[in-house]
Amino acid sequence: MIKKIQYGMVGGGEGAFIGEVHRIAARMDNHFELVAGAFSSDSERSIRFGTILGLSEDRCYENYNKMVSKEIVREETIEAVVIVTPNHLHLHIAELFLKAGIHVICDKPLSAKLEQAYSFANFARQTKKIFAVTYNYSGYPLVRHAREIISQGEIGEIRTIQIEYAQDWLSEKLEESGHKQAVWRTDPMQAGNGGCLSDIGTHAFHLSCFVSGLKPKAILADLKHFVEGRNVYDNAHILLRFSGGAKGMLWVSQVAPGNENGLRLRIYGSKAGLEWSQENPNYLKLSTLGESPQILGRGSANLSSAAAKMTRIPSGHPEGYIEGFANIYKEIAQAVYASRKGKSFPKGVLFPDLEDGVAGMEFIDAALKSNQNNNQWVLFEGK
Amino acid sequence: MIKKIQYGMVGGGEGAFIGEVHRIAARMDNHFELVAGAFSSDSERSIRFGTILGLSEDRCYENYNKMVSKEIVREETIEAVVIVTPNHLHLHIAELFLKAGIHVICDKPLSAKLEQAYSFANFARQTKKIFAVTYNYSGYPLVRHAREIISQGEIGEIRTIQIEYAQDWLSEKLEESGHKQAVWRTDPMQAGNGGCLSDIGTHAFHLSCFVSGLKPKAILADLKHFVEGRNVYDNAHILLRFSGGAKGMLWVSQVAPGNENGLRLRIYGSKAGLEWSQENPNYLKLSTLGESPQILGRGSANLSSAAAKMTRIPSGHPEGYIEGFANIYKEIAQAVYASRKGKSFPKGVLFPDLEDGVAGMEFIDAALKSNQNNNQWVLFEGK
Amino acid sequence: MIKKIQYGMVGGGEGAFIGEVHRIAARMDNHFELVAGAFSSDSERSIRFGTILGLSEDRCYENYNKMVSKEIVREETIEAVVIVTPNHLHLHIAELFLKAGIHVICDKPLSAKLEQAYSFANFARQTKKIFAVTYNYSGYPLVRHAREIISQGEIGEIRTIQIEYAQDWLSEKLEESGHKQAVWRTDPMQAGNGGCLSDIGTHAFHLSCFVSGLKPKAILADLKHFVEGRNVYDNAHILLRFSGGAKGMLWVSQVAPGNENGLRLRIYGSKAGLEWSQENPNYLKLSTLGESPQILGRGSANLSSAAAKMTRIPSGHPEGYIEGFANIYKEIAQAVYASRKGKSFPKGVLFPDLEDGVAGMEFIDAALKSNQNNNQWVLFEGK
Amino acid sequence: MIKKIQYGMVGGGEGAFIGEVHRIAARMDNHFELVAGAFSSDSERSIRFGTILGLSEDRCYENYNKMVSKEIVREETIEAVVIVTPNHLHLHIAELFLKAGIHVICDKPLSAKLEQAYSFANFARQTKKIFAVTYNYSGYPLVRHAREIISQGEIGEIRTIQIEYAQDWLSEKLEESGHKQAVWRTDPMQAGNGGCLSDIGTHAFHLSCFVSGLKPKAILADLKHFVEGRNVYDNAHILLRFSGGAKGMLWVSQVAPGNENGLRLRIYGSKAGLEWSQENPNYLKLSTLGESPQILGRGSANLSSAAAKMTRIPSGHPEGYIEGFANIYKEIAQAVYASRKGKSFPKGVLFPDLEDGVAGMEFIDAALKSNQNNNQWVLFEGK
Repeated sequence: MIKKIQYGMVGGGEGAFIGEVHRIAARMDNHFELVAGAFSSDSERSIRFGTILGLSEDRCYENYNKMVSKEIVREETIEAVVIVTPNHLHLHIAELFLKAGIHVICDKPLSAKLEQAYSFANFARQTKKIFAVTYNYSGYPLVRHAREIISQGEIGEIRTIQIEYAQDWLSEKLEESGHKQAVWRTDPMQAGNGGCLSDIGTHAFHLSCFVSGLKPKAILADLKHFVEGRNVYDNAHILLRFSGGAKGMLWVSQVAPGNENGLRLRIYGSKAGLEWSQENPNYLKLSTLGESPQILGRGSANLSSAAAKMTRIPSGHPEGYIEGFANIYKEIAQAVYASRKGKSFPKGVLFPDLEDGVAGMEFIDAALKSNQNNNQWVLFEGK
Repeated sequence: MIKKIQYGMVGGGEGAFIGEVHRIAARMDNHFELVAGAFSSDSERSIRFGTILGLSEDRCYENYNKMVSKEIVREETIEAVVIVTPNHLHLHIAELFLKAGIHVICDKPLSAKLEQAYSFANFARQTKKIFAVTYNYSGYPLVRHAREIISQGEIGEIRTIQIEYAQDWLSEKLEESGHKQAVWRTDPMQAGNGGCLSDIGTHAFHLSCFVSGLKPKAILADLKHFVEGRNVYDNAHILLRFSGGAKGMLWVSQVAPGNENGLRLRIYGSKAGLEWSQENPNYLKLSTLGESPQILGRGSANLSSAAAKMTRIPSGHPEGYIEGFANIYKEIAQAVYASRKGKSFPKGVLFPDLEDGVAGMEFIDAALKSNQNNNQWVLFEGK
Repeated sequence: MIKKIQYGMVGGGEGAFIGEVHRIAARMDNHFELVAGAFSSDSERSIRFGTILGLSEDRCYENYNKMVSKEIVREETIEAVVIVTPNHLHLHIAELFLKAGIHVICDKPLSAKLEQAYSFANFARQTKKIFAVTYNYSGYPLVRHAREIISQGEIGEIRTIQIEYAQDWLSEKLEESGHKQAVWRTDPMQAGNGGCLSDIGTHAFHLSCFVSGLKPKAILADLKHFVEGRNVYDNAHILLRFSGGAKGMLWVSQVAPGNENGLRLRIYGSKAGLEWSQENPNYLKLSTLGESPQILGRGSANLSSAAAKMTRIPSGHPEGYIEGFANIYKEIAQAVYASRKGKSFPKGVLFPDLEDGVAGMEFIDAALKSNQNNNQWVLFEGK
Repeated sequence: MIKKIQYGMVGGGEGAFIGEVHRIAARMDNHFELVAGAFSSDSERSIRFGTILGLSEDRCYENYNKMVSKEIVREETIEAVVIVTPNHLHLHIAELFLKAGIHVICDKPLSAKLEQAYSFANFARQTKKIFAVTYNYSGYPLVRHAREIISQGEIGEIRTIQIEYAQDWLSEKLEESGHKQAVWRTDPMQAGNGGCLSDIGTHAFHLSCFVSGLKPKAILADLKHFVEGRNVYDNAHILLRFSGGAKGMLWVSQVAPGNENGLRLRIYGSKAGLEWSQENPNYLKLSTLGESPQILGRGSANLSSAAAKMTRIPSGHPEGYIEGFANIYKEIAQAVYASRKGKSFPKGVLFPDLEDGVAGMEFIDAALKSNQNNNQWVLFEGK
């Protein structure tokens, strides 16, 4: 068996759901082993939490600076680091670890500011290290299948893309109650000015490009915060134009009661249409002109190998969010293994990378510009 | 029993599905009786079709001009006329019949041109006759219930409205095959320049205003015909702003494979969200913040009287499109009965009227203007 | 145009939902015209209700005896009668009208007693008159399509049939509150001993035979009334065996909270499976081994002509309960028209008839016997 | 952090999906660590597979006998063993390990024969070791919630339970093609005579008792193998009677095209009904008499703590099969931890145990007896 990837984590302490998701996802396929971490900005908490997780005491660090400096002088240092702090810290930390020769797995969005993303990218592109961004929804098997059949022309020329990512947890002014997640995610300093665009919109944007294979060309955005006194946008109505003439609509909201994590993608081409919803992710609807719609099930023998290799269990046994997330980790592991031998990624490994991360930041920035500028079109380019 | 309303029909000959729908809907509750008609622009066909429908021979007319002139001199003339011709003829015919003192039930949209709609409206407002426009989707019981609870504040202040009306029947260039419905609906002369906006977009627009109780304030539209060589738009991406600060997104398409008649309305307020889909019209999802979503079923004892009076059968026995359509006819009948006594409409009678028709035309016009003008906002007002 | 069928109605007075359903269904396609009736056992109410319906006064009868005797001596008598009384009266009335040379459309089940059904059938088979039983669920277009493709072998040899018809409206002792429908339907004298079997189980039984094309061979039933003090069964757990080796399970309940009118049919063969649900009747799921499941939509161009001729409007415009019911009436009309010319039914006309009615009574009787006899198998034969 | 539970595995070699599921489930919450195994009846394969899994060479055993004898003399032996062999070997192996003082986690059903289960149970009850049976579907959060609210009387007195577990993967004679899973599961020697009853029926049976809290009293079964020449039953139609007067229907099939892993449970009481489906496990429908049905979502703040502690991520982020399975492992871990301190299980730990396993065997046996005896009722008792 290949040696497991020993990794560390920055952020993701007590109560931070996304940290725990990363840890479970990393563990699922047995490629990763958490051995070090700086889990909180509070040094005491950071160390205590590492101990709870079962790390050896000397690798529970007070903060990420200590973590880098001490890991780097160990005989066996961590091979990768997972960064799950608030957005504004991502790249500063990433740079430290990359410079130490450690692969980076970074939560989205890259940063709170586009300029920082650009300058970081210039640096990071020079390193030979892996930099992954966890746009995890691209890891679902049927998302992979959709991408595969689109790339093979099965739905024809794409005409319109309908994307939405709606939640309701910020329908009231939760940040006032001290709810930790709400506080930093609605703080422009920590999360950036994008609000819901940064928090979930980038997921939807990435997914639409990933599946369609199209590049965005222009964006027009009408942003608003519906909750009085909120400092970031909580609802976005967006029009898109893609390469090749396709158009899109994107709705992002965190104030839509009844939507828990309503990420939904529909792509319509000249021959067929595809519909997928994250809350019921084991099915993909394929409607070919002139035929009755088909319900493609995850795990079905009729699916592409692109989908098959992203699933663990037979059809009818539902997989969920963590499994999709773990697929990203599985692919990162393949890249790390290749990297050990000085090879580039195996073909078909599609985890989101630095350029996807930069594209997400450009998306946020272009949307903000359009909104400031009376909702005019803003040209931009994705990955 | 009250004397039935004897009515005539213009248009709606062989193969015109909407004509038959009107006839069944009118018949359903036994308030209307078809006694006269000019069903086709071809006089022979017109007469033959009337005979097939069982009309007495002397009331199967060669054309609508003859119909008006002869009906008007009969001892007992028709009390109402249903106009289901291509759009560009609606108002010319309507004017003839209104002048003859006959109530008019007109299919949507009012006309192929806004100017015509305006000048007609100026005339029609002077008459004391009923003028109804069959935005039939407003007749569904759960649509009425949604409107009712919104008006009572149950979902709080409205924030965002997501509307879509997607079909796929024009995904290929059907008009080239001589398909009659496709031919006139894609002919700017007969249908107007709006294309899918006129054909189905006005339904969606009307529904969103009807249910939300909000007035539109501005529109921004990105229109396209994806089928090469088509003369009208077959896809529309639209942003809306409403009175009171609410915003909306509206997608209209006739080129989205897998969508048969996908009219769907979602309205989110500060307290709750509502979701309804025309293809599964017997259920309304109500999601109140802090509570589990509820599935309200048509016919349930828990619904408002506004919904209850629009349904005929117990819950679990599905009603459909024709029943919703017939509800509009039922309300028109109540208005006609009131009119016989010189009274105004009974309270709670909500069938779409002249002003709704004009608003639909303004919607089309404003969308076209926005599209021509680099997708800028165009101010406009609904009913 | 063919002369409409003038018909009368017995039963179906104020508040009887099924009477109104029959009237709307008969009216929908313009083949029938209600001209006479005895609507209530209370003669005054009977006459009043006829007047409300707009019948001419001399054809609003005090009771069905008067109705027969007077109609029979009119120059133009009714051509058909619709019987929608409580079950125990059906056949007595039917006999009167058949003897008068009038076609009979009878609600299900035939009777409250099997013996009465047998002796009536012996008589009725001798007449040349039409006798239809309104197992209306067989009128849904996708039910027809399911039957058609099964008869063509598309799902292979049938193995198991899963049928259920669940409601919840009798979950509490509604009959004690004086609720009229509950009172007679739970009274063994009026409804028979079958309870839920008579009221809704016969629908499910008929549907399973109609669609599968199989004959029942044996039944095993475990019946119960869960509501204390109720005089008839409100829940039935039934096993079935069919000709050709297929087996079935049938659940009937009127005490299952959350089920409004949950009639659902699933048939599995050696090649494919079919699933249909009455509450969402515009879709049929077809799962062929080795292929992804397909969702067949009513009105789709891919359906059989057997389905196509049972629908009025394009796909995506939902049809419902009344439309399915009206399809039965449409077929009866075709039979009446043929009868006028002394011809037998046109091919493909499939409305439920006397033998279906008798089979339903045998089903109830066999189930009761099995239940009394310690749930042993009881042999019986359907139509 | 508590010391992880080092465990071994017997069976579950290459291509055995359930072995991999156990390993992922055990790993998910970081309580278990696989350190030893005998994965195949072929000793070479057994060792090779252990190596692939990354076990140290000296703990990759040729067979389970060697495994027990060598583990038992190690300084640090495994604390638990997971048995995922064909059914007939479960208890022989379990006995070996229990005698060695090792906790046992055994796949279902207990055995291929009831007698063996009884004699094993007599032995096992004497040990102080944990014996868990992986009826994993009881680990889903909403299954726990259903159990919780039923136990609190929220749905009233239970009347009828509708259970089904349908698959289609054995619709054709797959065992003839050498398909390994099909071969042993249709071999009476390895799997027992129950066929689909053993393979999946026991899951459904356990789930219905677990959620309802009722004890079975009698069973009546109509069994069949529809695939010609198959040696075990592939379809079962079953009636049940429970303590307290409730009744049930259970359908089990592996020949129902379109059903992948269709485990579905519906429980109806005097006050409310509950519906849950394994293929869409993140939602539970609760229909209370007089109220609109509610859709309870996993992770919602409205759920019981019994559900909350069985979930890892926020609502709207779907969990699936592996997460539910891992919940069983999480509870077993809690029991092992308690056992280390000589304590009994913490309250609320509900993983299926020896008595559940025995009940499953009695269920199979009683069903077979009923079927042999002309489908008469057979009395039996569950846990």
